[in-house]
Amino acid sequence: MQKTRLDTARIRAARRLIDPVFLDTPLYRCEALEPVLGCTVSIKLETANPVRSFKARGTEVVASRLAAGDARAVVCASAGNLGQALAWSGRGRGLDVTVVASRFATVAKLDRIRALDARLELVDGDHEMARERAAALARQDGIRLVEDSLDIETCEGAATIGLELVDTAPSFDTVLIALGGGALATGVGHVLKALVPEVEVICVQPQGAPAMTRSWHRRRVVTTDSADTIADGVAGRRPIPAVLRDLLLVADDAVLVQEASIVAGMRTLLDHAGLVVEPSAALGIAAILEDRPRFADRHVVTLVCGNNVDMDAYHRWVGVSGHA
Amino acid sequence: MQKTRLDTARIRAARRLIDPVFLDTPLYRCEALEPVLGCTVSIKLETANPVRSFKARGTEVVASRLAAGDARAVVCASAGNLGQALAWSGRGRGLDVTVVASRFATVAKLDRIRALDARLELVDGDHEMARERAAALARQDGIRLVEDSLDIETCEGAATIGLELVDTAPSFDTVLIALGGGALATGVGHVLKALVPEVEVICVQPQGAPAMTRSWHRRRVVTTDSADTIADGVAGRRPIPAVLRDLLLVADDAVLVQEASIVAGMRTLLDHAGLVVEPSAALGIAAILEDRPRFADRHVVTLVCGNNVDMDAYHRWVGVSGHA
Repeated sequence: MQKTRLDTARIRAARRLIDPVFLDTPLYRCEALEPVLGCTVSIKLETANPVRSFKARGTEVVASRLAAGDARAVVCASAGNLGQALAWSGRGRGLDVTVVASRFATVAKLDRIRALDARLELVDGDHEMARERAAALARQDGIRLVEDSLDIETCEGAATIGLELVDTAPSFDTVLIALGGGALATGVGHVLKALVPEVEVICVQPQGAPAMTRSWHRRRVVTTDSADTIADGVAGRRPIPAVLRDLLLVADDAVLVQEASIVAGMRTLLDHAGLVVEPSAALGIAAILEDRPRFADRHVVTLVCGNNVDMDAYHRWVGVSGHA
Repeated sequence: MQKTRLDTARIRAARRLIDPVFLDTPLYRCEALEPVLGCTVSIKLETANPVRSFKARGTEVVASRLAAGDARAVVCASAGNLGQALAWSGRGRGLDVTVVASRFATVAKLDRIRALDARLELVDGDHEMARERAAALARQDGIRLVEDSLDIETCEGAATIGLELVDTAPSFDTVLIALGGGALATGVGHVLKALVPEVEVICVQPQGAPAMTRSWHRRRVVTTDSADTIADGVAGRRPIPAVLRDLLLVADDAVLVQEASIVAGMRTLLDHAGLVVEPSAALGIAAILEDRPRFADRHVVTLVCGNNVDMDAYHRWVGVSGHA
């Protein structure tokens, strides 16, 4: 494999910076899903922790290193999960955390960011506008900007998931990874390609937010004018060139799925695995539902990467009526 | 502490007999629950594994020992979770597994027992009738009967949860444990009282199935003529004397909760923790909801012990309409 920006030894070292509550997450075969999906399915569950997503693996690395220096403040843009994770990691280390988010972000995520004592600033635009505003704040205040997927800690933190997959002496053929900015995909993909290169790495993105997938296929950055998907965690429009370069080295494929398939994936995980997931975490199941023949007879691992949802929206999506 | 039937060294040894997929389950503080419950709350999540309950910790011990001998077959009575777990543990070790259950048992549990290649026999009565039939089958066929809560492996398997709680250098004050036959409560309770006796052990049972709780309070076995609760996993009527003796040594209290509180507990875990749980797994939250002042300012751990539910019933309970 050509060299990505990531380093396997540094990823192993990163584990020691991460609170154990975020590590060694459940990985288990879920046979009840298999008749529905037509393949062998294992779940890597990243939701049973204080921030209900994998993002704290990265923010723990960022915040540990900041706190070891003399930094007192940090800012990030977030669709909600990174902000929540950075708020958690920063709070425990005495850092002032500012999170910039779209005012259209998932309310449950914004509420949790506030509850974790972070300063939350909302912008009247989408996630890309939040990124610009966070960068401006960092320049203005002279504080560290955490850029998801660009900053190596976010990728190498996520990559610790890959180590855990490999350490189970994997019998699996394929790993399905939600693709947004690319931290999760390049992180986990790097470890898999470095240590078990025969395992297939497939990234999955919504058709309504296809920028990174299109970029991967054309081997150059492609931006989009808008993003329209319920999968708020992966709704970026402007891929980062350095992240795309890494993704080109570690992904075997990148596929797009329809919104209806994402909803069907959420419903499948609820009905057959007893899991509430946010839309981004259902992308892998959606990919299988859209192309069962491709995965038949394969052992597929899907990363259930987050479950921060507005419950009203969730009930609407999965076809059951709203709150009593 | 007076001696229970359980042995801490043997419990440590039991860990080595249990497939790691069932061990070292997530334990995390869930701050989003805290404004609702008025206390500090941590969750020990026993549902992210192939059988979606803690029961395999016990059946792994049973099946390992049976397979190490020359046994080829085993039978148990089950409300559904033990049977599923024994089916899983037996299948991997070449044991013929028979499960006897009530024909009124949760359909999702019965389906999973069949899917795991066990022979399932249904009786036209409740769980106590299933226990009698399983005992008759064991005598007739000369095979091992696994009696939940009576057989020490079921208690000591469950007790490995207690070791994991203790090994986190506990900052918690109270552990809330669903009480049915008593394997979970005596197992976890034994370890806590042996190693961190200052931690309070509170058992929780539905008012509709109060036999063991009444027995604990009267310090002698009290049976009931019927059990009427949605918490199918804890709906026994005839406590086992030896288990009651152990429970008297390790439990600080045993409380009963209303059905409405169990439903509210399930709803609370869904809305604020993103967790689908079966009724038995909501008993701890139900106990807090019924007596917030008792737990205020305490750090409470609740064991989320299973999430095998019929989804139609689940949607009905939590107040959202049925399947689309």
